[in-house]
Amino acid sequence: MALIVQKYGGTSVGSTERIKNVARRVARWKAMGHDLVVVPSAMSGETNRLIGLAREISAMPDPRELDVVASTGEQVTIGLLSMALMEQGLKAKSYTGAQVKILTDSAHTKARILNIEEANMRADLAAGCVVVVAGFQGVDEMGNITTLGRGGSDTSAVALAAALKADECQIYTDVDGVYTADPRIVPEARRLTTITFEEMLEMASLGSKVLQIRSVEFAGKYNVKLRVLSSFDDVDTPGEGTLITFEEDEKMEHAIISGIAFARDEAKITVRGVPDRPGIAYAILGPVGDANIDVDMIIQNVSVDGMTDFSFTVHRNEYQKALDVLNDKVKAHIGALDIGGDEHIAKVSVVGVGMRSHVGIASQMFRTLAEEGINIQMISTSEIKISVVIDEKYVELAVRVLHKAFELDQQPA
Amino acid sequence: MALIVQKYGGTSVGSTERIKNVARRVARWKAMGHDLVVVPSAMSGETNRLIGLAREISAMPDPRELDVVASTGEQVTIGLLSMALMEQGLKAKSYTGAQVKILTDSAHTKARILNIEEANMRADLAAGCVVVVAGFQGVDEMGNITTLGRGGSDTSAVALAAALKADECQIYTDVDGVYTADPRIVPEARRLTTITFEEMLEMASLGSKVLQIRSVEFAGKYNVKLRVLSSFDDVDTPGEGTLITFEEDEKMEHAIISGIAFARDEAKITVRGVPDRPGIAYAILGPVGDANIDVDMIIQNVSVDGMTDFSFTVHRNEYQKALDVLNDKVKAHIGALDIGGDEHIAKVSVVGVGMRSHVGIASQMFRTLAEEGINIQMISTSEIKISVVIDEKYVELAVRVLHKAFELDQQPA
Repeated sequence: MALIVQKYGGTSVGSTERIKNVARRVARWKAMGHDLVVVPSAMSGETNRLIGLAREISAMPDPRELDVVASTGEQVTIGLLSMALMEQGLKAKSYTGAQVKILTDSAHTKARILNIEEANMRADLAAGCVVVVAGFQGVDEMGNITTLGRGGSDTSAVALAAALKADECQIYTDVDGVYTADPRIVPEARRLTTITFEEMLEMASLGSKVLQIRSVEFAGKYNVKLRVLSSFDDVDTPGEGTLITFEEDEKMEHAIISGIAFARDEAKITVRGVPDRPGIAYAILGPVGDANIDVDMIIQNVSVDGMTDFSFTVHRNEYQKALDVLNDKVKAHIGALDIGGDEHIAKVSVVGVGMRSHVGIASQMFRTLAEEGINIQMISTSEIKISVVIDEKYVELAVRVLHKAFELDQQPA
Repeated sequence: MALIVQKYGGTSVGSTERIKNVARRVARWKAMGHDLVVVPSAMSGETNRLIGLAREISAMPDPRELDVVASTGEQVTIGLLSMALMEQGLKAKSYTGAQVKILTDSAHTKARILNIEEANMRADLAAGCVVVVAGFQGVDEMGNITTLGRGGSDTSAVALAAALKADECQIYTDVDGVYTADPRIVPEARRLTTITFEEMLEMASLGSKVLQIRSVEFAGKYNVKLRVLSSFDDVDTPGEGTLITFEEDEKMEHAIISGIAFARDEAKITVRGVPDRPGIAYAILGPVGDANIDVDMIIQNVSVDGMTDFSFTVHRNEYQKALDVLNDKVKAHIGALDIGGDEHIAKVSVVGVGMRSHVGIASQMFRTLAEEGINIQMISTSEIKISVVIDEKYVELAVRVLHKAFELDQQPA
């Protein structure tokens, strides 16, 4: 008998029929003798509807009041899901974030969880009750309703699993696990039975958005066993999903590379003809940071005749803003020749903890791309991933050839 | 400078445009220097939508969970209205029932208010803030969300006015006051500038449903000055509505009769040929009460040869159920000759506190109806009203001729 926290996303509870299906799925786990805490999101579309109402009232809705409005989406689903569980003959009880209570700071619309009181939930579980907790929301010290930001229900589930020392936190979504690559681009992509937290973080931050990054970090910090599962497969013959582990050893026996990720949402900026002297990187990126623009990859070329080129990537939404900052505040100041940019780039990454103990991954990656005539514009590496920036038009091709080159279509030995 | 509690019904906050209008109305009162506590209902249709979702899940939704779901309607409007008030340049803060806290008993879906904590609201008011409180909801001692039942927002507003010792409780609705008769039937009907609580109770219970009966009783008990106003008249030239007073004297100088009310939702049942002996009324009405059927008017005819007829009215929805009870459990038992009934009746009432000190009202009412050939089937009187049951087809005619006979179309001297 285990204590399991299950989180169901918006599409999984998108209609009363689907809520009934979730109740059947929960009942199956309960019948196996497990204790269950269930965390539903708002019905799909509901949070957008509520925020839309707020925006009709105000272009910049007050954050405290926006949380009062937005948190009702999850409050509706906890009530409905509890009713559906009772229809399955189970005992069930719903909790809002305030009722739990999930104490957060007061940063409305992006609050962070500080503490979770577990006594009442424990008592209900001991009485055989399924505990249903509203995701995405909490309450601050003064009793104000807070929300955790988009995707915050994942974080709620992981935090509850950590507080209750649950045996497993299951994230139900509309895909049945984490894949070696996006199956829409690589039909041979395989579902991974396990992936490490670090790999998952790299995959998530690179655009394979199965889980909220924050929830993965949270799970890693508190050693919560996370599993990604589908809520759309057959209730009676469920898949096993992908287990996200924090123990590396079992993983390393299997594969060096776990997957190929990509992101299309960046743009590249190049400052050309920059005098190569100390402090130049700060002179360029300082004003960009002051404008609240996040910078991802950064490259400084080898200096020729005391001059160098300096390139970096930003989110595509902030491309024009970054160019304006450079032209207004940086170009003349540092005496750069020219500011250029490219919005049509993509980042492709090879991710795997096995890289730590295997050499030659980078050269194999570069050779594979070269053989297809794909030029590499920028390179960035970490212990467990190698990312390259390429022309956006080659992104699908690059993902496919890398998937094949690293034999990800093969079951590991 | 006064402290005013304003309640806005579902149609008054039925869209974001209307919520902005409410904010403008509140801003006007605030500009006059008043302190304001505003209690909005859910947007029109929203409570029905939420209850509809619950019924899709369960034919008999768990009452605790139904309250969790249904209470979100008002939570959305308090957030939206607070935003709209800020757009008007005002300080505003929303409170759920639990945040106030409005303590109730644990009778989910029909809870009763036990206590209201006023300290936080007082502090906000002192800081110049408009306080926006969710109607219809409260919280029990264990922290469970409760609702007060349909129309409970009126009760919330009156209870808040009582707790805060407000100078006036204003109920905004889609009519601009209480009329001497339904203006759809009597075009000459006049808006009353004042009406007493007792008259209002009689009018409300007789079908002129401007206010929830419970809220009027509550206001009477705690001496809360209630005013019914329209939220659809011009914001800058608002009407004065109808003031509901608990002081009779000023009222009695004006008119003997305040209005003509009617109700079409009853049905008449007659038990004929009943042996006239002690206990016969209980033998008939006991089983009806045991079946949870409310009885309104009751008449027992004069006995002839030891036999009598016994008539009473019930809500039309319970007519068939009452007939079944009588045929199954009563008829043979008491040896009645026959059970008959009539669903096509209406109750017409003349209401006025002036009746207490004036004679001849009943005879004038009966003569007026007789002159139109309208037969009176049953009569019931109280200190401040006379009700008659007539054939339903005469109801409009009866209301019109009584309105004219008691000169309600004339401004009182």
